[in-house]
Amino acid sequence: MERTFLIVGHRVRTDAKFSLNDLCGSTGRLDILLRTINSSFLLSNGIRRNVTLYLVLQGEPDAPISICLKGPELRYLNPDERSTGALIRQALLTKGISEEWKRSTPGIYIAKREYDDLLMELIASGKRPVYLHETGVPLSEANFPNENGLLFLLGDQFDLTEEEEQRLQEISENPVGKISLGPEILHTDHCVILIHNALDRQEE
Amino acid sequence: MERTFLIVGHRVRTDAKFSLNDLCGSTGRLDILLRTINSSFLLSNGIRRNVTLYLVLQGEPDAPISICLKGPELRYLNPDERSTGALIRQALLTKGISEEWKRSTPGIYIAKREYDDLLMELIASGKRPVYLHETGVPLSEANFPNENGLLFLLGDQFDLTEEEEQRLQEISENPVGKISLGPEILHTDHCVILIHNALDRQEE
Repeated sequence: MERTFLIVGHRVRTDAKFSLNDLCGSTGRLDILLRTINSSFLLSNGIRRNVTLYLVLQGEPDAPISICLKGPELRYLNPDERSTGALIRQALLTKGISEEWKRSTPGIYIAKREYDDLLMELIASGKRPVYLHETGVPLSEANFPNENGLLFLLGDQFDLTEEEEQRLQEISENPVGKISLGPEILHTDHCVILIHNALDRQEE
Repeated sequence: MERTFLIVGHRVRTDAKFSLNDLCGSTGRLDILLRTINSSFLLSNGIRRNVTLYLVLQGEPDAPISICLKGPELRYLNPDERSTGALIRQALLTKGISEEWKRSTPGIYIAKREYDDLLMELIASGKRPVYLHETGVPLSEANFPNENGLLFLLGDQFDLTEEEEQRLQEISENPVGKISLGPEILHTDHCVILIHNALDRQEE
């Protein structure tokens, strides 16, 4: 079944003025999103074609900017941070970024879109939102059947803000699914690995 | 409980003649091991202190070289590949590498040690070896009680070779534990995330 992830980069830079030699220090922590691209798409022997990943960049100087990566079309994706950083920088160099999605490289699109806006569109298209919460169902027992697929929401090094959680509840007509991943607090890219594995085994 | 990982880098370079700007192309895929260091140790809010990680480098020009990272002592570990690459390069620059472990930076040791040798020592110290195999127990059901902790063996982009698997069976007096992680073939660093999470939940 299709799997959609929406990750908010609360301080990630929204221009291409950063160095591939300093992806951690100069980008508002784009490095976290790069590792999440890796864990969202990469299998040992290929790309997960049933995944769509939205990154919402909320940092200086042109927030918000959203980047969408589409599994079925994605090419040139390697597991290392630097080469993925180059693909995202190329997307940020796209001319005339507007509300319309513009293709940068195969499977990578960019637009001037914000969190609320994406969320409304995805939920309207039938996706069921699910997010991480300590009161959620343990992932191993989670079962959120939805024929249009699930939409997993995650923050970067910061959780979704209270306001973002509240908007999610307001926009979603149905109760929002909550999952918990275990007793430890994990990095975003590691959370994605656990979500994929639970779904892989459910769908086996 | 203590968790030990031994990862074989079948072609990873055994000197420091590589560029931090090309960790993927110039190192025999050290990048895979760097991501595995990240997933072995990093929680969102700190370092897993109950982990020891052995990396066995088998590439040109001075194979074998082993690097040991010790959770209780580890410092200066950031999640990005480049900064971890700098720590490993520094270890490879250690002068007079011999069979004795030499400390490079806090928690990082290097020695002229090979796979068989490490395996014998770890098993003799009471660790129970466990490795990934398609005929293994599903990770969610796996339960290998062992008061001295488990030793997880993984390959890099290549599985353990037949010879390495055979040596493992020979060295271990008891049956070697086998686990399977699900229907998809995953990158090494992603496997480590799943192992940690299963143990986290068992120990909760």
